Amino acid sequence: MPKVEVCLSPQLIHLFDLKGKIVVVTDILRATSCMTTGIAHGVIQIKPVATLDECKELKNEGYFTAAERNGTKVEGFDIGNSPYSYMEEKFAGNKIATTTTNGTLAITKSTDADEVIIGSFLNLSTVANYLINTGKGVVIHCAGWKGNYSLEDTLFAGALFEKLRKDFEVGDDATSSALSIYSAAKQNLLATILGSSHAKRLEKHDIRKDIELCCTIDKYNVLPYLKNGVLIKK
Amino acid sequence: MPKVEVCLSPQLIHLFDLKGKIVVVTDILRATSCMTTGIAHGVIQIKPVATLDECKELKNEGYFTAAERNGTKVEGFDIGNSPYSYMEEKFAGNKIATTTTNGTLAITKSTDADEVIIGSFLNLSTVANYLINTGKGVVIHCAGWKGNYSLEDTLFAGALFEKLRKDFEVGDDATSSALSIYSAAKQNLLATILGSSHAKRLEKHDIRKDIELCCTIDKYNVLPYLKNGVLIKK
Repeated sequence: MPKVEVCLSPQLIHLFDLKGKIVVVTDILRATSCMTTGIAHGVIQIKPVATLDECKELKNEGYFTAAERNGTKVEGFDIGNSPYSYMEEKFAGNKIATTTTNGTLAITKSTDADEVIIGSFLNLSTVANYLINTGKGVVIHCAGWKGNYSLEDTLFAGALFEKLRKDFEVGDDATSSALSIYSAAKQNLLATILGSSHAKRLEKHDIRKDIELCCTIDKYNVLPYLKNGVLIKK
Repeated sequence: MPKVEVCLSPQLIHLFDLKGKIVVVTDILRATSCMTTGIAHGVIQIKPVATLDECKELKNEGYFTAAERNGTKVEGFDIGNSPYSYMEEKFAGNKIATTTTNGTLAITKSTDADEVIIGSFLNLSTVANYLINTGKGVVIHCAGWKGNYSLEDTLFAGALFEKLRKDFEVGDDATSSALSIYSAAKQNLLATILGSSHAKRLEKHDIRKDIELCCTIDKYNVLPYLKNGVLIKK
């Protein structure tokens, strides 16, 4: 049986052998929830980039731009990091370039893998089914917060492994721990995530509605997939 | 109230501000369990060093030497990394120099803190009581396995925080997660740790007896304490 491993932070990803595997990048609050939402609402391409300058440059190539730093939208960009922004009709059929604190970094650090896909609670079952059908080894890469561990990404890792456990082996301790944490929290997922340090940091930005959306399981059945540096619908 | 934070790997410790705080280093299998055992059995000083060469050199300064790499004793040293070795009568009143895969690294990376102490299940309550009486901020530094997350160290972090929670705040997500994992596992602590990837790696070295010892709660009431680069009894 193939294995599932969980990388708890981009600062640990160099310890994993990604060759031949699928990496599921997750940044629940809010990068990968946004990406899932955008692709579900008809955005044809999302390009994650590391810096604000790179992101701004892409306006010249016909991209709308999304930028967030420390939880807030950066001035001069079309949108920030609210999944609701990604639902706007004007984006359907268009491209968005995005730069976020943690999510972009996790994606760019995952490219040694065979495939990189985007996971969030919003497309949980779609991700799980794709992994089961593909049957490769899996590394769930939690974006965390500024390099450190974050609860909401680990909860997603646990939720995803719960769906995979009949078809995959536990690959490391972080996987069994993620499952344990999710099992204890799943009846109160929203309340648990609202109690996380990340949600508390975001409180001042009044994004309770965003967090509720990000905790919705299986709202969409799309799979954002990295190809030549951009996310497209698989 | 002071806070408790949990650092899940030495690779993440640079993200923590250790100034003014007490760091509790833990490497349950088996470095800090050995240190606790040694100090409890009358070893007057344990010096953790990074390399085999440094460790061997210390023979000339009257140290017995302990060395482990990848779970086994290294030839040419007095003992390896079994806590039972640290009970030998000849060590009482003497000094041991030790080098281990993960534990030494976690100690040397913690020295920006006000105080560095050694925690294991063997001295759990002694550590907790010291922290409660001292009242400083606490970082529990899990040694992990070759830089990555390990279950048994996180379980210890959860067990320790359970004892501290009336007097300390949750400082980060890793602390609440460690408590969640420990709460789910504490009725079957030994079985859970025997199922960890670390214990499985050690299986071939036949150290089941060691692991059982390392899971014994409050066998000793000593506090190994770092002073001028060596561990002594507080």
